[in-house]
Amino acid sequence: MTSEIGIDDLPIRDELRGKSPYGAPQLDVPVRLNTNENPYPLPEPLVERIAERVREAARTLNRYPDRDAVELRTALAAYLTRTAGHEVGPQQVWAANGSNEVLQQLLQTFAGPGRLAIGFEPSYSMHGLIARGTGTGWISGPRREDFRIDTEAATAAIAEHRPDVVFVTSPNNPTGTAVDAGTVLALHEAAQAAKPSLVVVDEAYVEFSHRPSLLPLIEGRPNLVVSRTMSKAFGAAGLRLGYLAAHPAVVDAVQLVRLPYHLSAVTQATALAALEHTDTLLGYVEALKAERDRLVAELLAAGYEVTESDANFVQFGRFEDAHAVWRSILDRGVLVRDNGVPGWLRVTAGTPQENDAFLDAVRALKKEQSS
Amino acid sequence: MTSEIGIDDLPIRDELRGKSPYGAPQLDVPVRLNTNENPYPLPEPLVERIAERVREAARTLNRYPDRDAVELRTALAAYLTRTAGHEVGPQQVWAANGSNEVLQQLLQTFAGPGRLAIGFEPSYSMHGLIARGTGTGWISGPRREDFRIDTEAATAAIAEHRPDVVFVTSPNNPTGTAVDAGTVLALHEAAQAAKPSLVVVDEAYVEFSHRPSLLPLIEGRPNLVVSRTMSKAFGAAGLRLGYLAAHPAVVDAVQLVRLPYHLSAVTQATALAALEHTDTLLGYVEALKAERDRLVAELLAAGYEVTESDANFVQFGRFEDAHAVWRSILDRGVLVRDNGVPGWLRVTAGTPQENDAFLDAVRALKKEQSS
Repeated sequence: MTSEIGIDDLPIRDELRGKSPYGAPQLDVPVRLNTNENPYPLPEPLVERIAERVREAARTLNRYPDRDAVELRTALAAYLTRTAGHEVGPQQVWAANGSNEVLQQLLQTFAGPGRLAIGFEPSYSMHGLIARGTGTGWISGPRREDFRIDTEAATAAIAEHRPDVVFVTSPNNPTGTAVDAGTVLALHEAAQAAKPSLVVVDEAYVEFSHRPSLLPLIEGRPNLVVSRTMSKAFGAAGLRLGYLAAHPAVVDAVQLVRLPYHLSAVTQATALAALEHTDTLLGYVEALKAERDRLVAELLAAGYEVTESDANFVQFGRFEDAHAVWRSILDRGVLVRDNGVPGWLRVTAGTPQENDAFLDAVRALKKEQSS
Repeated sequence: MTSEIGIDDLPIRDELRGKSPYGAPQLDVPVRLNTNENPYPLPEPLVERIAERVREAARTLNRYPDRDAVELRTALAAYLTRTAGHEVGPQQVWAANGSNEVLQQLLQTFAGPGRLAIGFEPSYSMHGLIARGTGTGWISGPRREDFRIDTEAATAAIAEHRPDVVFVTSPNNPTGTAVDAGTVLALHEAAQAAKPSLVVVDEAYVEFSHRPSLLPLIEGRPNLVVSRTMSKAFGAAGLRLGYLAAHPAVVDAVQLVRLPYHLSAVTQATALAALEHTDTLLGYVEALKAERDRLVAELLAAGYEVTESDANFVQFGRFEDAHAVWRSILDRGVLVRDNGVPGWLRVTAGTPQENDAFLDAVRALKKEQSS
């Protein structure tokens, strides 16, 4: 091979030139609290159940999977109905390979070339990246100094740019901030007034929130979608199962762009097994919420600032040079995340032992600075 | 829910209005020979191995999967090196959820808004649909009456339209026609002369071909990509595992648009298990090639025309009203595919029993017509 040829020698799209692939640095460190993974492995009975259901699925693996994933969507709808305070049917649920693929399908359907999407930043950076990947223009909307959404500024940005898709992340990543229903309703109203546009409420972390899900807002609002994932609360980041709840017409619409048979039979089987063990997994969520609250309290006690968190992570600061602090924590064997928010870092709530290691590191750091 | 609201009441993209989702009709029929699935279920030892490897993967399912799927790409590279007559390394291989996702990533990287792709039709209709889904303009290039590519007409079309991506399907679907290396080289040359553009050779069915793979053509041609799938030869349509082989720079380039962690840990584990059983699965391929040849011979003997086939299916005709014949065959309990090629239908090579049922049906039909 002529190995001196690089990406820029290929006829790639101009806007991709000079870019790097998205992804957190993968470093071999004892305590990894950088990607908001659930630290608890799936319980062994669930591991066995997954093996059992996948064995069964493998016996017909020569056939295409259920293209519409009806059994899985029915189970997801039952989970939402039970936990989100709103009755949802399978025809209101759609699933894909991670919520990233769900969001990509929504942008392909409702945005794309010649259209615009807006998010209020800092927020989940994949929203902007998937917009770029689908040819959608991206507007970086405002957020307050305390990382809450400034409703007035946000609705003004919507009125000015008239986006086709509006992203609202609640709880927000990387800040942890939840959004109240009134704010979402105000943004939705502004978005419908500017032009009929889709409002996507990204609830990837909602199971860790002090507040109820915003899911009931989909009632009577066909242009409002809630996206979810099994990566965090279900402890299944390796499964790549994201889903949405919305008006059935939205579910019909994304099927115009979804790749046929996008969701494999093994993914469907594994997700169904995990949903059978919902109660156990939600028990781990409660443990993680308690650990998250402990991280907040101990960080404050150690003299750090924290952003109010409704997620399984905590944003802490403030630092003159956040990246230097990230490196100092890493030197103590703990990997946290520098999301590029000036002055702040993000730590995932791990096991009590992992969190102790993190707290020891940041306490030592504080002592060092003040000595 | 306000159930009277439909897709067209939503702010979807204009070009999606009035469209239907892609996909073969899923009918409950005794003999289904319509989607080119491999009729042989995975052997039981492989089913057990899948359960074993997925059980292992499930124990760390709370963590994100290997984002770069290195172990899987290494195994796929070894398979290609062994079977395609060309040494390929893991850095030349990329994998995704079905070859559809591989092709989508290629179009996002090398085509997209403001760019063009061409295919020589009739061919795999997803090429045009994925082009549309990525905002890429689509040119329907010519094909000869006998369904081979007319090199002169094809290179003229490339010179005229100057596409950014050129699709060549070999063996072609739904016609079964293989493409020789000389034709691909002529198209590649024309594509580079018109503007530097990517040539994608879709070899989804190549393991069933009488001819060798075109994979060696990637040597020294960084703008030539070969795509593959485990759906057909590996009997794993339910797994959704597609892959490509190309210059390492192409593999680097698609990582600019791939969704991070797109390939789940269970998909990677299942594919690795299947690759361990390559020899057994390639034995089924030999059986299917013999059945495909029998279908061709028997269809000819029964007075039908067939297109020369290098795939696990046969295009047969010619009919004044192909859809009426499709219906008559269905009435006899056999589902074949009407791909919309005027005068022709497509039948997948099934088990000997399934093929007997199909042959009985088409022989009876011929008798009926001549009586």
